[in-house]
Amino acid sequence: MYPNWILQRAYLTPLRNALTYKEQTWTFQQLNELSIQRARQLTALGIKQGDRIAIMGPSKPELVIMIYACMHLQCEMVMLNRRLSQAEIAYQLEDSEAVVILIADEDIEKLPSHASPLLFSAIEKGTEASIVISKEWSLHQTTSIMYTSGTTGFPKGVRQTVGNHQASATASVLNIGLQADDTWLCAVPLFHISGFSILVRSLLYGNKVHLYDYFDVEAISQNIIDGDVTHMSVVAVTLERILHTLEQRSAQASSRFKLMLAGGGPVPVDYLKRAKALHLAVAQTYGMTETSSQTATLASEDAMSKIGSAGKPLFFNQIRIAEPNLSGEGEICIRGPHVTPGYIGRFAQKSATVDGWLYTGDIGYLDDEGYLFVIDRRADLIISGGENIYPAEIENVLLTHPAVKEAGVCGIDDEQWGQVPIAFVVLKEQIQIDQLLAFCQKFLARYKIPKKIIITDKLPRNGANKLLRRKLKQ
Amino acid sequence: MYPNWILQRAYLTPLRNALTYKEQTWTFQQLNELSIQRARQLTALGIKQGDRIAIMGPSKPELVIMIYACMHLQCEMVMLNRRLSQAEIAYQLEDSEAVVILIADEDIEKLPSHASPLLFSAIEKGTEASIVISKEWSLHQTTSIMYTSGTTGFPKGVRQTVGNHQASATASVLNIGLQADDTWLCAVPLFHISGFSILVRSLLYGNKVHLYDYFDVEAISQNIIDGDVTHMSVVAVTLERILHTLEQRSAQASSRFKLMLAGGGPVPVDYLKRAKALHLAVAQTYGMTETSSQTATLASEDAMSKIGSAGKPLFFNQIRIAEPNLSGEGEICIRGPHVTPGYIGRFAQKSATVDGWLYTGDIGYLDDEGYLFVIDRRADLIISGGENIYPAEIENVLLTHPAVKEAGVCGIDDEQWGQVPIAFVVLKEQIQIDQLLAFCQKFLARYKIPKKIIITDKLPRNGANKLLRRKLKQ
Repeated sequence: MYPNWILQRAYLTPLRNALTYKEQTWTFQQLNELSIQRARQLTALGIKQGDRIAIMGPSKPELVIMIYACMHLQCEMVMLNRRLSQAEIAYQLEDSEAVVILIADEDIEKLPSHASPLLFSAIEKGTEASIVISKEWSLHQTTSIMYTSGTTGFPKGVRQTVGNHQASATASVLNIGLQADDTWLCAVPLFHISGFSILVRSLLYGNKVHLYDYFDVEAISQNIIDGDVTHMSVVAVTLERILHTLEQRSAQASSRFKLMLAGGGPVPVDYLKRAKALHLAVAQTYGMTETSSQTATLASEDAMSKIGSAGKPLFFNQIRIAEPNLSGEGEICIRGPHVTPGYIGRFAQKSATVDGWLYTGDIGYLDDEGYLFVIDRRADLIISGGENIYPAEIENVLLTHPAVKEAGVCGIDDEQWGQVPIAFVVLKEQIQIDQLLAFCQKFLARYKIPKKIIITDKLPRNGANKLLRRKLKQ
Repeated sequence: MYPNWILQRAYLTPLRNALTYKEQTWTFQQLNELSIQRARQLTALGIKQGDRIAIMGPSKPELVIMIYACMHLQCEMVMLNRRLSQAEIAYQLEDSEAVVILIADEDIEKLPSHASPLLFSAIEKGTEASIVISKEWSLHQTTSIMYTSGTTGFPKGVRQTVGNHQASATASVLNIGLQADDTWLCAVPLFHISGFSILVRSLLYGNKVHLYDYFDVEAISQNIIDGDVTHMSVVAVTLERILHTLEQRSAQASSRFKLMLAGGGPVPVDYLKRAKALHLAVAQTYGMTETSSQTATLASEDAMSKIGSAGKPLFFNQIRIAEPNLSGEGEICIRGPHVTPGYIGRFAQKSATVDGWLYTGDIGYLDDEGYLFVIDRRADLIISGGENIYPAEIENVLLTHPAVKEAGVCGIDDEQWGQVPIAFVVLKEQIQIDQLLAFCQKFLARYKIPKKIIITDKLPRNGANKLLRRKLKQ
């Protein structure tokens, strides 16, 4: 058994700062007290220990406190992505069978109309019921559930357990080190593992999180120049915007700033060079929802000598290449205590691993020194501004339209977002492109809507009639 | 499954320095290669994967390489204390059923005559057999076995697993932080958990160990003043000698030096004040063989405000006081992934824990803020220069002498060693004290031999005829 992270941290270092948002700062003791109060209020509203509940809200202290309250109640939290369409949210609610939705007041419009949520404001004003908070958690307890799509296009709810999160946080600290006054700037979504893992690390490390509810590039850049922050998680797009701002201001990162962890796909070489000139250390990482954040990370001192590499595994993790070709390229497989035990809902019976190995679907190789290079993302995955987009998911939506006979989606390079999706369709009957786009808007998050829909006679397929998405690009 | 620590560390940071001894330094890659070679030589000599073997030697690189070789072979290492008598060693060899003894040439005289050991020099010159080294270890695999006595006086072989050691090292890093160039000065025995855990941390953290084969106070003090070291493990006696040397030289600890971890009993207030004046941060710890090192540690910033406290538990650990009296004092109980799963040999059937809690036998309390104060060591434990001495063990030896009818042992304060044992005996027949002392020397390690033997008519006993050792002192 392991200690309840929030109680333990508040016990060990009650007066250390835990969270800053705008002008306000909370200590670990304060966050603990507020989250216990919120847990009592949730209990008064009928939520029970271990319930599976869905949560949605912007990255504000209210959401952090609500998450910690749910942790106190050992609830399984389905972290709803705020960018999803109502149809996508409806799917996750139905699949997860969440007993209730906790939602920030400002996000209520994002929910499907039939949902009956509890508003943060109502919870915060509610009465408190008495509760017994467990001081101990089991390694196998599910802390969070995040939906991620696969080749089929049906999003799968990935379990992230206490053990997964702990293993991720401890392996990361063995890689990048730790000091008591380290501060992590969080401007990535808390509903993604990139943001959620910052909260977990804060609790385990006793470090402060400086939280931003949107990517406020001016304020964030200023913080990097002369603020409290030492670490930050970025994707290529946000890194570039920070670089651009620092360059415009002829400013450098403060000597206090230690490291940018860059995930969600490769960082262009040019960005790395510009970062170096600004004294900004960048460590490229390879991680995913199924591994509760980083599996491998490239040390910043290797950034220039191993360009394009995602580095070596963190201490407790292993990587191997399955069925490599003559050049050593094959499917990247991952093993370690950070790998999910599996899924919920309709994929609950599907095993996430084979003999303990997670087959990622990503193609890559390990060089002579054991550095990982990811050369092709799984199942034609499109990464747009750090968000994963699975072509099949968009194709499935297009195919439900009565005028569409066949659909194929691929990613094309985009200066701002890295990649964006475009679609090819074969029609059964005449229809305007605008009508198809409007149809997509009903069912898909904004970032998944094809930037272009192209009407064609025929899609490229192989002998088994399988769509060849890579040929679409050409 | 978790990675083989030595292979993983050599893979992740091959060129980082791992070990310095006198003028020589080895990288992790070099230690890995040497220890694999040694594992091949051990295999050629008939040692098999998973064998239980005993090891003895001074703290020199040869011993580190031998330990790592045994780790590669997943052997269960019985770490023999070099200070024990031949009779004590014979007991451990018999109880553990070690298949072989690996011994440094210079320690051969310490073994009982019937033992048939393998000398380090013979192993190092031997041929190499081919082996397959496991890349993975199980959490439950026993890495090391250390004997510790209890109230009965019969030493028990404590298992320390891969999981125990990992939990200890990761919990410690969450408490004291980590930087890549941290260097641990090791002048505590590698056969104790205090020294062994320094090796484990080195492998997990990628930090260098600066090893000393004896407590060379001049060289160690010089290192603290202007050398490579950042951390050191001490007991009160060795701390005082360092303080004295720094004071004599009017020198201070270098700004690079970070922390002294002080274990093995309380550190006198006066030492803490003197350390502070020398800019030497001291963190008092509470740990034991059964918990693979630290369970609690007092932050150095609390050293003066919480004098006498052993601090708070490390992040993954829990402490509670069983059956507290009205002042909150009771038996200290410990729970966490660092607690031994149990014993080997004649105590293999004895459970180490009750519902996951280790009952330490030590008496203490937690203050209002949850800081642990240890007020009485278990079972009249005598701590002398960091070595545990159990009165019953000495009494048992005295009682085997034909002239002795009753024996009682207690500790008295000693300026140099903290405490030393003295004995009271009731005689059956006349005998010289010197003869009794000579008898003890045959069966006991030097530090356990009573500093004084006092002949008396009667020992203080309670109604149940149980010896009242505390009354002996008076």
